[in-house]
Amino acid sequence: MANKKNIKLGAMIHGVGGGWEDWKHPDAITDASTNFQFYKHQAQTAEAGKFDFAFIADSVHITEKSSPHYLNRFEPLTILSALATVTKRIGLVGTLTVSYSEPFTVARQFASLDHISKGRAGWNVVTSWLSGSANNYSKDEHPPHDKRYRIAQEHVDVVKGLWDSWEDDAFTRDKESGVFFDPSKLHTLGHKGEFFSVQGPLNIARSRQGQPVIFQAGTSEDGRHFASKNADAIFVGHENIDEAKAYYADIKRRVAAHGRRPEDVSILPGIRPIIGRTEEEAESKYLETVNLVSIEKAIIALGRPFNDYDFSVYPLDEPFPDLGDLGANSQQGGSEKIKRLAKEHNLTLREVALRFATPRGNFVGTPEKIADTIQRWIEEEASDGFIIGVGIPGALQDFVELVVPILQERGLYRTEYEHETLRGHLGLEVPVNRNAKAKVLN
Amino acid sequence: MANKKNIKLGAMIHGVGGGWEDWKHPDAITDASTNFQFYKHQAQTAEAGKFDFAFIADSVHITEKSSPHYLNRFEPLTILSALATVTKRIGLVGTLTVSYSEPFTVARQFASLDHISKGRAGWNVVTSWLSGSANNYSKDEHPPHDKRYRIAQEHVDVVKGLWDSWEDDAFTRDKESGVFFDPSKLHTLGHKGEFFSVQGPLNIARSRQGQPVIFQAGTSEDGRHFASKNADAIFVGHENIDEAKAYYADIKRRVAAHGRRPEDVSILPGIRPIIGRTEEEAESKYLETVNLVSIEKAIIALGRPFNDYDFSVYPLDEPFPDLGDLGANSQQGGSEKIKRLAKEHNLTLREVALRFATPRGNFVGTPEKIADTIQRWIEEEASDGFIIGVGIPGALQDFVELVVPILQERGLYRTEYEHETLRGHLGLEVPVNRNAKAKVLN
Repeated sequence: MANKKNIKLGAMIHGVGGGWEDWKHPDAITDASTNFQFYKHQAQTAEAGKFDFAFIADSVHITEKSSPHYLNRFEPLTILSALATVTKRIGLVGTLTVSYSEPFTVARQFASLDHISKGRAGWNVVTSWLSGSANNYSKDEHPPHDKRYRIAQEHVDVVKGLWDSWEDDAFTRDKESGVFFDPSKLHTLGHKGEFFSVQGPLNIARSRQGQPVIFQAGTSEDGRHFASKNADAIFVGHENIDEAKAYYADIKRRVAAHGRRPEDVSILPGIRPIIGRTEEEAESKYLETVNLVSIEKAIIALGRPFNDYDFSVYPLDEPFPDLGDLGANSQQGGSEKIKRLAKEHNLTLREVALRFATPRGNFVGTPEKIADTIQRWIEEEASDGFIIGVGIPGALQDFVELVVPILQERGLYRTEYEHETLRGHLGLEVPVNRNAKAKVLN
Repeated sequence: MANKKNIKLGAMIHGVGGGWEDWKHPDAITDASTNFQFYKHQAQTAEAGKFDFAFIADSVHITEKSSPHYLNRFEPLTILSALATVTKRIGLVGTLTVSYSEPFTVARQFASLDHISKGRAGWNVVTSWLSGSANNYSKDEHPPHDKRYRIAQEHVDVVKGLWDSWEDDAFTRDKESGVFFDPSKLHTLGHKGEFFSVQGPLNIARSRQGQPVIFQAGTSEDGRHFASKNADAIFVGHENIDEAKAYYADIKRRVAAHGRRPEDVSILPGIRPIIGRTEEEAESKYLETVNLVSIEKAIIALGRPFNDYDFSVYPLDEPFPDLGDLGANSQQGGSEKIKRLAKEHNLTLREVALRFATPRGNFVGTPEKIADTIQRWIEEEASDGFIIGVGIPGALQDFVELVVPILQERGLYRTEYEHETLRGHLGLEVPVNRNAKAKVLN
């Protein structure tokens, strides 16, 4: 199903790293999360590697126990707009929560980014799983899991509707006649729904992509349903290739059931490749990251998908506790996976915490070995590409300089950008404006 | 009171121009409002002129009758973040409404812009006067004028509180000890008020300015009170120097009454200079802009400060209609001024509309004459500087190339930037973190 000549690659840019103690690495730049030069360098490195996109994660609630990379970081829309001007081709994908944002503002900001970047914007739709988020947004309570996905569907529908406010050729701008636009090509949404009432129209023209690209990360039942219905690309985490293949098959089946073409949804597992000139060097680099992590921090990190649950009350070296349905209302897919893993392998709390804090993954080794694994995952339909997360500083550069050329030599990956927009990179068409389409059908 | 060596100048960057028919000018770039190259050129031109800041206006509601420059334009935070990377010193001020935004998001985005730009961010606080805005934000009704200012005060207080979440030296980032920050320097706001409940802390460090600069445009009684209490700079429109002097004296008195130093609030009238090599050339350029405007569009434009009121129902050549308190709940200060002007000069509706649509202002003439007028306004305490609005394309460049050198020769204006931040340019100190201050006092 995957086009083997077109592996998709994204680069997660994460400041001080995606792990809780990555910042302690000897090479880590400790102020990276608010250091524009660092972000610029990472984005340009990914662009040199012909990556499809750079990806900015986000969350909207911290406590003093939060990881360094959550505590202090750029806000996604602002940093992506800045990166748009120092890159030319790479897509720019930002995370933004539907639970604590207004569709009108979301539609405007991503459309504006799409104009600034000439068609490279993507929105990673999240619902936020930390209940404390509500307290930062004047809300009495964080909505439960299923309601968050209902909000998400309506929010995304409204945003997409607003993006179609203006037909592509609405702005005629004819000085002679004094007609700036064709009123028959301006459309008012008039949405009144369960959660949102949004009149429109949006005060920005349709951009080069027609609509920015939709990303999503869904592993729960609600999440899979939402992603397969709405997403152009799915960001997911997997323990191994079998899990990945099962997920891939399930999502592609659901996509088809929604009447969509399976190849129009890219499934992109997040990986943290650790590259060495030899297997031993890679292994020792991995151990270096493991040794940065204290069990205390690992226990705190483990609590996050369970809504910052405090695991320190349990004995470390006894079997992982029975948590009932804890986590079902926060990061449901992620927390379930942890519980399943602990049970399947009969792990202690300490083992689960360390494994979660320093996932080894399948991508530790020489450039050839990593390229082999990537090729295998693509060929066996475990993924359509990957989002490269970075723990060790320089790992993205290593990947671009050492792994990408091998994939290119094998004919698996582009050697030059063939398109100018993120949609182009991902092989997606510019969606026809719904209002223009409606006219043709009438 | 004003430091005569330090006139403050801002550049309004407005895409197709601030007037309803500016886009029809032969030199106008008709897609300028979503053309990044245009914005970049304007910002760099203003920076070449050593301007204190570039300024982006905004609104969140359009109809098919709205002006071309409202219909389709960049969103402020995204375009300012992009401009941050193509400029080095100039301040970056963006408009954002308190009526339809969340303080947590506002605080984050401006703080993020402040980090990206290394201390050049400013927030122009507006309350939004178009009642249709509510329909884009799932709100039943647009809050009335006085309530909007109560919301504004609480919103700004929360944003400022969030900006002080982290003390300046909170992030120790010591790899050796594994301590990323000092928890005693992290502060949780815990705000519960009439309109907002925001726990905090903010997930971004204090930026180089400590807090981004606050701009405001207030001419109503509520607006003057709010601006003199909260603003670091005030954007205002005046008919003539006498009106400007009265406003200036009133605001500086109010500022002092709030226990603030009058020189810490810059009063900056918006002007649209039209520059010619001769008086005749300037006058003919002005008439060129007048001739672009049809009475039909002028009548629509006039309705805007009255919440898009339809003036077309009145006869054009009879005295301006008696409107009662219409406008008091929308742009109160602006609509009152129009009513006063019509009455004082006994104007017809046509006269008022055309005067409003094509304000001639006091800044039409040769570079010397404009420099003279600027000097007079500063010396007579009518203003601390100006925000240069642009109708005619190239007018900003003319101002920078022709008027700025005269002001510099006269010793009234900087020849080089002396500071790196917007606060620095405006002569404002970095505010001490409230939580650090509280510790010292305890």
